[in-house]
Amino acid sequence: MDLFEAIEKRHSYRGAFQDKPVLKEDLIKIVDAGLKAPTGKNQQTTEFVVVDDAQLVKQIAVMHELNKAVQQAKAFIVCAIDKEPESIYGPFSFQLEDCSAAVENMLLAITALGYASVWIDGWLRVEGRAEKIAALLNLPDNKKVQVLLPIGIPEEIKSQPKKKSFDERVWFNRYS
Amino acid sequence: MDLFEAIEKRHSYRGAFQDKPVLKEDLIKIVDAGLKAPTGKNQQTTEFVVVDDAQLVKQIAVMHELNKAVQQAKAFIVCAIDKEPESIYGPFSFQLEDCSAAVENMLLAITALGYASVWIDGWLRVEGRAEKIAALLNLPDNKKVQVLLPIGIPEEIKSQPKKKSFDERVWFNRYS
Repeated sequence: MDLFEAIEKRHSYRGAFQDKPVLKEDLIKIVDAGLKAPTGKNQQTTEFVVVDDAQLVKQIAVMHELNKAVQQAKAFIVCAIDKEPESIYGPFSFQLEDCSAAVENMLLAITALGYASVWIDGWLRVEGRAEKIAALLNLPDNKKVQVLLPIGIPEEIKSQPKKKSFDERVWFNRYS
Repeated sequence: MDLFEAIEKRHSYRGAFQDKPVLKEDLIKIVDAGLKAPTGKNQQTTEFVVVDDAQLVKQIAVMHELNKAVQQAKAFIVCAIDKEPESIYGPFSFQLEDCSAAVENMLLAITALGYASVWIDGWLRVEGRAEKIAALLNLPDNKKVQVLLPIGIPEEIKSQPKKKSFDERVWFNRYS
């Protein structure tokens, strides 16, 4: 799929998934897109757990009370970063940025391959959910689940929500 | 350009630029790719200043002592977020994530259109550089420059740096 078409078509999908698997070769292509994202000082800090074991998928899926895409996911990609990121430029670290760029690459790859997903972050931060998923996947103590991507073939046709206009967010040369 | 080709070809370019302008229509396509990135709760928090005025470009370009891509940039895209992001999910905000996803979309668009760039963040955080650029561009007091993207047509042929292997960063079902 053309890059600009993928960017246009990518959207946060919270609907039902068809009862068809996500091909292993596609999961590898998706996560490979994440590996190729830029990272601060090329530190490649994000690590990925691809979850396609039916029992594990179910254990994560049942945790969400509302989001059908999580409830019916055929696979998950879990992105992990350090709980206490090391400083790599003065006092700064870029693990959140690294992870986010990788997630965006993967969301575009998911779209291009005919699947859908939604970037799940805030939901993980409460009620011990990130910690519970980390335990299920055997993450080391120094790592945390930063982002969860449910993946499947969308049952419903959706698109990006209404966005602000170009002029509300873009200026030329001087902000005004 | 195909999505996966753009992901493969995107790299952090710090080399010389050809003495050719970045077309205005391409700058619009690039920033439009940024606008279409996902954002937490669809808040669309990142704002963009496209700098293509020769004098302003020069004023930013001379600030970097090492990076040829900044020194010879034909245009810049400056990404701004709130200095004190509002909480939008419990105590959490996602402006860093929003901005990073937008930057990645723009880097892919830059690549697909035959230009090159590099994600500049840490360099802005020291010696008052972000603040100096914010003043040049008339950013409001509550906004800060988060990312700077220099843009031009690359003079040199470069590619992604050597990366860790797949097995060093990816696990299936259980981290081990």
